[in-house]
Amino acid sequence: MVEINGSVKDLLDQPVLYNLATVNPNGSIQVNPVWGDIEDGRIVINTAVGRQKHKNLVERGDRITVMVQDPSDTQRYIEIRGKVSELTEANGDEVIDRLAKKYLGVDTYPYRSAEETRVTIVIEPTKVFGE
Amino acid sequence: MVEINGSVKDLLDQPVLYNLATVNPNGSIQVNPVWGDIEDGRIVINTAVGRQKHKNLVERGDRITVMVQDPSDTQRYIEIRGKVSELTEANGDEVIDRLAKKYLGVDTYPYRSAEETRVTIVIEPTKVFGE
Repeated sequence: MVEINGSVKDLLDQPVLYNLATVNPNGSIQVNPVWGDIEDGRIVINTAVGRQKHKNLVERGDRITVMVQDPSDTQRYIEIRGKVSELTEANGDEVIDRLAKKYLGVDTYPYRSAEETRVTIVIEPTKVFGE
Repeated sequence: MVEINGSVKDLLDQPVLYNLATVNPNGSIQVNPVWGDIEDGRIVINTAVGRQKHKNLVERGDRITVMVQDPSDTQRYIEIRGKVSELTEANGDEVIDRLAKKYLGVDTYPYRSAEETRVTIVIEPTKVFGE
């Protein structure tokens, strides 16, 4: 495993959007900006169970790319390729609250819906481009 | 063909980075921010011949995704799936100069290299998500 650290971690620790690319069932690519964080050198994101993103992460978790732009330097971006190493509903609510703190400065995720179950995904980096 | 127009075109007419996702030979995904424009309802980008991006566009041009974030609204993004409909070196230099005007406000692309040949790629949208 390649770990996220140094100047790359410094950027990803900021409340920057993580542009998450996953592979759809027909081979096309979904790219969505999501909240994310770095923990123990890995990427941590969170979504709702049943979304296409979730299905792609479950079924084609070996082909994940996350790209982040530096908001203070339009020439700088970091591209990380990796694979899903963990996918759990156990801490789904806890992690989305932590991300709401990082991105919105609030203690509780304000867009929570009674109909949805939050799931946390850990992505293990295999390649990092940029620094 | 789905055409890019209305509020989506308004966003993509701005000097926002186009996050271009292409498929690598091994099935992994490359996501890079590039300059881009909309012409006749299609996406126009430009790169250098021989780069991985160029090879992916030539060899797997049926699976292209472009995602653009609205810099004035972090909740808004547009995702466009499409396929390469044209790939030409004929106007490669002309288009990179036009993009330099859009993004940098200068008449001539300042990073031109004698070793590289610029190529223009037109992407025909097949699906547009967001508005």
